[in-house]
Amino acid sequence: MLVKAKVAQAIELLNEFDVDCWITFVRESDINGDPILDYVVGTDVTWHSAFIITASGETHAIVGQFDTQSILDTGAYQHVQGFVQGIKEPLLECLQRINPRQIALNYSIGSEICDGLTHGMFLTMQGHLSEIGFQDRIISAEHIVSALRERKAAPEIQAIREAIAHTEDIIKAVSGYIQPSKTEIDIARFIQGKFEEKGLPPAWDIHTCPAVYTGPDITDPHYPPTDRVVEGGHVLSMDFGVRVDGYCSDMQRTFYVRREEEDAVPAQVQHGFETIVEAIDRSRQALKPGVIGLDIDTIARDHVVACGYEEFAHGLGHQVGRFVHDGTALLGPAWEKYAQKPFQKIYENMVFTIEPRLTVPGYGVVTIEEMVVVKATGAEFLSTPQQELIVV
Amino acid sequence: MLVKAKVAQAIELLNEFDVDCWITFVRESDINGDPILDYVVGTDVTWHSAFIITASGETHAIVGQFDTQSILDTGAYQHVQGFVQGIKEPLLECLQRINPRQIALNYSIGSEICDGLTHGMFLTMQGHLSEIGFQDRIISAEHIVSALRERKAAPEIQAIREAIAHTEDIIKAVSGYIQPSKTEIDIARFIQGKFEEKGLPPAWDIHTCPAVYTGPDITDPHYPPTDRVVEGGHVLSMDFGVRVDGYCSDMQRTFYVRREEEDAVPAQVQHGFETIVEAIDRSRQALKPGVIGLDIDTIARDHVVACGYEEFAHGLGHQVGRFVHDGTALLGPAWEKYAQKPFQKIYENMVFTIEPRLTVPGYGVVTIEEMVVVKATGAEFLSTPQQELIVV
Repeated sequence: MLVKAKVAQAIELLNEFDVDCWITFVRESDINGDPILDYVVGTDVTWHSAFIITASGETHAIVGQFDTQSILDTGAYQHVQGFVQGIKEPLLECLQRINPRQIALNYSIGSEICDGLTHGMFLTMQGHLSEIGFQDRIISAEHIVSALRERKAAPEIQAIREAIAHTEDIIKAVSGYIQPSKTEIDIARFIQGKFEEKGLPPAWDIHTCPAVYTGPDITDPHYPPTDRVVEGGHVLSMDFGVRVDGYCSDMQRTFYVRREEEDAVPAQVQHGFETIVEAIDRSRQALKPGVIGLDIDTIARDHVVACGYEEFAHGLGHQVGRFVHDGTALLGPAWEKYAQKPFQKIYENMVFTIEPRLTVPGYGVVTIEEMVVVKATGAEFLSTPQQELIVV
Repeated sequence: MLVKAKVAQAIELLNEFDVDCWITFVRESDINGDPILDYVVGTDVTWHSAFIITASGETHAIVGQFDTQSILDTGAYQHVQGFVQGIKEPLLECLQRINPRQIALNYSIGSEICDGLTHGMFLTMQGHLSEIGFQDRIISAEHIVSALRERKAAPEIQAIREAIAHTEDIIKAVSGYIQPSKTEIDIARFIQGKFEEKGLPPAWDIHTCPAVYTGPDITDPHYPPTDRVVEGGHVLSMDFGVRVDGYCSDMQRTFYVRREEEDAVPAQVQHGFETIVEAIDRSRQALKPGVIGLDIDTIARDHVVACGYEEFAHGLGHQVGRFVHDGTALLGPAWEKYAQKPFQKIYENMVFTIEPRLTVPGYGVVTIEEMVVVKATGAEFLSTPQQELIVV
């Protein structure tokens, strides 16, 4: 169902970008799958396989003989051709007939999500195409792949909404569980127990989903929970998500563990928390179709620095989809590792996280991660934004 | 543990192949992971990451700052360096100091298991290296990656043995379950129930693990079970495996469903079965270090054809490891899609399937898949070979 709709959307995108032929070229997708396969095929393939979509609306699948029935079953390809010994002959025959001006392939220097073609498969395709003089028609399919993942259809956004609702349920439950003497690992196990109760997979590797950090003496993000013990006076944060129908949520929440003698949250902690809430709100309000992510990142980054904190060592927010880090456009700074991502134009129906971060010395890390969807008039919260510290 | 042992083995292999520097270069391994990461890193990474191993025994990991602690924890790298903005500067500094004659990268036209580097990442590395004049030192790491996966350590073979033992348990159990009126889907669910009881993941995608085929009117291998009903006079076959500690089993067994009036297996079916058993035995006896897979495939293929059947439309057998189709060397014919695989020399401690196949018209497909390990003196069965049709 999704595959058919996405193949139809791909044909529209080819016309929008004036590219006349796009090929997803894979083999043994269980080993080196192209992340776009879920959108244009929806099943694994074994041997060299070419999924050819043209701007004129033709769809061809050329696959190993034993995979033909699975591909026919998707109903997404008008022409499905099987081979026994090798793909070269049927592939070149098909391309000679189409005779496209360009042949877009899934590679990209700057966007990993558009970089599903391995170098060996690139060389294979280049070698085959050179036999019919087409090797100079190869271009990157980055724009097509990006847009197909990023401009989400209603059922994709709905799945993300459901994943968020489950995540918020779990946050509520774990709020009643956290207390001094529990360890980060205890808290992580509690959350993972909820994943199991709900029958939902974690949004990323279970070793760091959830991530849980308590107190001032913690390590970097992306590190698994430890046996560090929750104590009064700790700022505690967590980062996790689940998958619904293959689509992810990704949220962070910050808690404060009250000391026995305290009747209010320490002023420094409260100030840090309010800084993050305000950074999220300012950047969300500026996020809308046509802007670029660099400018949104700058708004939050400048606010955090203006409030007296070090700038966060990562981008403000990423897109979310079938991967927790999805899409090309990023709300991020102009750093080498982000390549062209912060400069991509924002479109309607993109789903982003917003997740600034700061350290309150002596207490811990304050970090909130909200999720928003970009609509024609601006970004709307998909998550219920955290407005107050959760005090335990 | 395995990672440390495999990194040590990699250093030996670099010396054996006279390559002085090997780099595994990945980013967002959750999206486009290199299948060798499990062997040389054992954890996911987020940003551009370079794992550099030299013939002189140096090991360097250059990774995004937030991933440094996870990499330090593996204990496999002497030098772990984190970066915030981009990998280029620390990478080039490290390589200029090493000044290697060759820089082996994970790409291959003919072997998907050695082709973990995406084309975008190849272009990125090439671009960085060209800034220090090293771009012409790039070579394929195919031999290193192949050997590291293929020449298995004792704990790897032990895990495969355990996966096979579980598979044989399940075959025994399902033999008592199959009877006329059950469907392929019923049988598959029974087997998957056993996976769950044992807490073991299937060796490949659950949609086709197990594959179950009953009777003469079936589709191609790789197709999911259907609601086709088991009847007397059917040859029934199944293909499945499980994973233990990440390592796979992969086995096929053939059953005959007796008609009420029959007191013996029909002669044609028995002849087909014996042909397959004999093909396996002849090819296994020829399989030993130093031979090439093409010659082993030919022995089985010729026997099947000499017994009056069409030749099977696939290779005789593949290696098994962390993937069910693993390694480069293949027991297969010289077909385009198998590239150089049938011509690779066989080494000790490789694990192969042997799985010839034939159709008995009017009855169904006879197919047995055994697993063997190559020892110095020849190939030994890891599975308990099927010597008789399982009659139900």
